[in-house]
Amino acid sequence: MNKKNINIAIIGLGTIGSYLYKYLLKKRNLLRKKTSIAPNVIFVSAKNKQKKRGINIPKSKWLGNYLDAASHPKVDIVVELIGGSDGAAKKLVFAALKNKKHVVTANKALIAKHGDKLSKIAENNKVNLEFEAAVCGGVPIVRSLKEGLIANSIQKIYGIFNGTSNFILSSMDKQNIEYKSALQKAKQLGYAESNPISDINGQDVASKLEILTSLCFNSYINNKDIHLEGINNIDHIDISNANLLGYKIKLIGISEFKDNKITQRVHPCLIKKDSYIAKIDGVLNAVIIEGKPAGQTVIQGEGAGPEPTTSALISDISSIMRGNIKFPFVIPYKKRRSLRFEKINSKNFSSYLRLEVVDKHGVLSNITKILAKNSVSIKRLIQSPYNSKKYSSITIITHESKDDKLTKIVTQLSKKNFILKKPKLIRIENI
Amino acid sequence: MNKKNINIAIIGLGTIGSYLYKYLLKKRNLLRKKTSIAPNVIFVSAKNKQKKRGINIPKSKWLGNYLDAASHPKVDIVVELIGGSDGAAKKLVFAALKNKKHVVTANKALIAKHGDKLSKIAENNKVNLEFEAAVCGGVPIVRSLKEGLIANSIQKIYGIFNGTSNFILSSMDKQNIEYKSALQKAKQLGYAESNPISDINGQDVASKLEILTSLCFNSYINNKDIHLEGINNIDHIDISNANLLGYKIKLIGISEFKDNKITQRVHPCLIKKDSYIAKIDGVLNAVIIEGKPAGQTVIQGEGAGPEPTTSALISDISSIMRGNIKFPFVIPYKKRRSLRFEKINSKNFSSYLRLEVVDKHGVLSNITKILAKNSVSIKRLIQSPYNSKKYSSITIITHESKDDKLTKIVTQLSKKNFILKKPKLIRIENI
Repeated sequence: MNKKNINIAIIGLGTIGSYLYKYLLKKRNLLRKKTSIAPNVIFVSAKNKQKKRGINIPKSKWLGNYLDAASHPKVDIVVELIGGSDGAAKKLVFAALKNKKHVVTANKALIAKHGDKLSKIAENNKVNLEFEAAVCGGVPIVRSLKEGLIANSIQKIYGIFNGTSNFILSSMDKQNIEYKSALQKAKQLGYAESNPISDINGQDVASKLEILTSLCFNSYINNKDIHLEGINNIDHIDISNANLLGYKIKLIGISEFKDNKITQRVHPCLIKKDSYIAKIDGVLNAVIIEGKPAGQTVIQGEGAGPEPTTSALISDISSIMRGNIKFPFVIPYKKRRSLRFEKINSKNFSSYLRLEVVDKHGVLSNITKILAKNSVSIKRLIQSPYNSKKYSSITIITHESKDDKLTKIVTQLSKKNFILKKPKLIRIENI
Repeated sequence: MNKKNINIAIIGLGTIGSYLYKYLLKKRNLLRKKTSIAPNVIFVSAKNKQKKRGINIPKSKWLGNYLDAASHPKVDIVVELIGGSDGAAKKLVFAALKNKKHVVTANKALIAKHGDKLSKIAENNKVNLEFEAAVCGGVPIVRSLKEGLIANSIQKIYGIFNGTSNFILSSMDKQNIEYKSALQKAKQLGYAESNPISDINGQDVASKLEILTSLCFNSYINNKDIHLEGINNIDHIDISNANLLGYKIKLIGISEFKDNKITQRVHPCLIKKDSYIAKIDGVLNAVIIEGKPAGQTVIQGEGAGPEPTTSALISDISSIMRGNIKFPFVIPYKKRRSLRFEKINSKNFSSYLRLEVVDKHGVLSNITKILAKNSVSIKRLIQSPYNSKKYSSITIITHESKDDKLTKIVTQLSKKNFILKKPKLIRIENI
């Protein structure tokens, strides 16, 4: 880029957009020193113009129609901070790339859904499509995969990609509280939105994992073949059981490339207490990459909030300013691979099974029979009767067994009249 | 870079150079996919041509004189893997940059000593000087500081930057062995060289820290104002004492920017057992960056060996292939800052003090008097007599005190006739 200035339009002025606006104003000279180019925010747009943002934006910078950012001849970079996989965000980003504007976005849902098409347009038009801020906020994982670890053949990427759900699980554990109270606390502290559904049901992690899968394995994005479970079914009793058995419960995203097939999955896992990932608490994110020749690399940082997200947005903007035009997904669209994706069913897991049962004769033998029939063997079994009640809680740790057998057991047990609640199945992960 | 091929000369063919040569041969197509340019190794050179390397290098690729790599018109990138801050490595790199060749190096001693001058030449000649492999092997820390975390004002960088010394300390702790046996073990396993002096005395960490300081704070490299202690004075008793008190001993590099002054220091520290950094064991490296707006970022990985180092070298080579010309130290030479560096003397530390004393009347009162005179107060004191011997070991944890007072105490105590060995002072770090 042989220019002295670069012109930016910020579309969407929530907490992140407002913070970014202020940052670019304050740190303009520092960025000019580092990149030899000065960033100018020339336009902004937001749904609610009157909202209090604690910043004074000159009237001349407000666009009448947000879509004008995509076509205005003065705009070099469109920063999309609207959110959502479709609607306004989609319209804006498609239009901007078609008009040869660089795009920087924090929108994981958009990239996970339309990233392939968007990258094709960006490549053809030789502009950047950058989304560091879409994956784990301040953790510089996208850039590390595209540059720092470019030499590596990656076999596995996994980690804690959602701060809200991790905060909830940590709070349940450390403060001995139930899921609902922990969620309430997360909302009070601003760690969970008023509608935190995508944080809780695993969808947020899934979008990030789909993007990371594509970056790691040079495949197209696949948002169909992914196993998805959230944390909304975890009870405090599961966390205390896990503790007794030497485990923590974490919501993990894992993508693996093995035998020429990829498996993508997002679900709660029991993880050995002394493992690195079990110790990531609160709103932190951590990504672990296993590749050759670098071995294992870990990157950890703050996953959300205006500050870390702005750090990521600025790294994208600076990359464009330095003229570092790259393929959005490491290699060109055409050379990416149509890899086979494998379902979780045929994978083997050791697992945790919690059953709430009526305390009567023959129940245990009935349960063990069902497990045996499905070729699932028991490694450990703890039966704890509830005081002064006529039922018991049975916790089973199974040996490694095919996932479809494990889920079949849950279905079969659910139908039995001695089972009081749907049995809880949580996979054990040796990471 | 508007070329289809890029020509590389690898100078130095030890374990790393040989691995890199093989990697570039094997992964040529993958790199071409990722960067649109194919890397060709056209020349090599090494001191001992006959050495067995397990690779077949055509005769035509051997340079008669290694310095020809710096001037041959066909060479685009010189990869310097000779090592050492001066001599052949220095000659080669200066000559290559002067002749407008890009340089990639794994040589921390060279960059720490001559990096400022070299970066000036590289900038003037618009070529890259890249040294990701010089700092913590496979950990993509240099690139993360220059790109992923470019937005950040960094206040502090610290971590475990030397795998050999960390392996020795971990082994002493886990296997209850003395320093010498642990060093022997490290040598047997190939984690320590036959002459491991710079790993042991902290010099290796110091070079890395000096480079990181410059990258973080945009200062010139300063290799004078740095406090330096190695691990060669740590006894097993110190490690077991630390364990009893809830600490681990680690060799830490820390650089801090505070009140417009930088402090650089490398020394063993007592670190709370449950902190992240206390749990980094074996040959791993970990770097923690504290900055605004990203908050705390952690990057962890394998710090040495041909595989991780090659990962770093390839990221540098790819960066050049993509035409990503940057300033070697984030901002231009001229705009870097002449910052003030502060000595460790006036900093405050809580510290661990171990004294081996003759077991006689009045000794303890004598010791406490010396501490009191220097305004150092005691937080904890444990006196353990050695069975059937006429001396005791006294372990003191002090409250926060000025560093020069602490070292003064050591000097004063050393002169006392009831002190059997030079007292051991290890600072306690709350990280």
